[in-house]
Amino acid sequence: MVKRAADILERFGERVRVLRKESGYSQESFAAACGLDRTYIGGIERGERNVALRNIETIARALGITLAELMDDL
Amino acid sequence: MVKRAADILERFGERVRVLRKESGYSQESFAAACGLDRTYIGGIERGERNVALRNIETIARALGITLAELMDDL
Repeated sequence: MVKRAADILERFGERVRVLRKESGYSQESFAAACGLDRTYIGGIERGERNVALRNIETIARALGITLAELMDDL
Repeated sequence: MVKRAADILERFGERVRVLRKESGYSQESFAAACGLDRTYIGGIERGERNVALRNIETIARALGITLAELMDDL
């Protein structure tokens, strides 16, 4: 993947990382809460995954926030 | 695709359709503004596409709104 400065995938990944930690989740426990693989969550947080809408919703639900809250300031 | 009642793809598609029309775009002119195919936009609006983050951002930009605004109430 061609690297661009702080593109949307990186901004989203960083947001997920911050919110996941605020919620007291490790990557592993968060992955379990989402029903996703830990390596997939890691890839999201590193901005390596072009996450699709169903998984974005899954992440928001696991965090107990709305999609708009998840996307806030991105 | 198994049909579920108003799932996230359908809610997102309907939201895109409403905002696209409010902005005065036809599907064709909106697709051109997004740099995406008209049939792809049609598929999104019908809730048939699990749209990924890069294209979600492209759609928000074409509508002149933030990602959070695009996701409002979904």
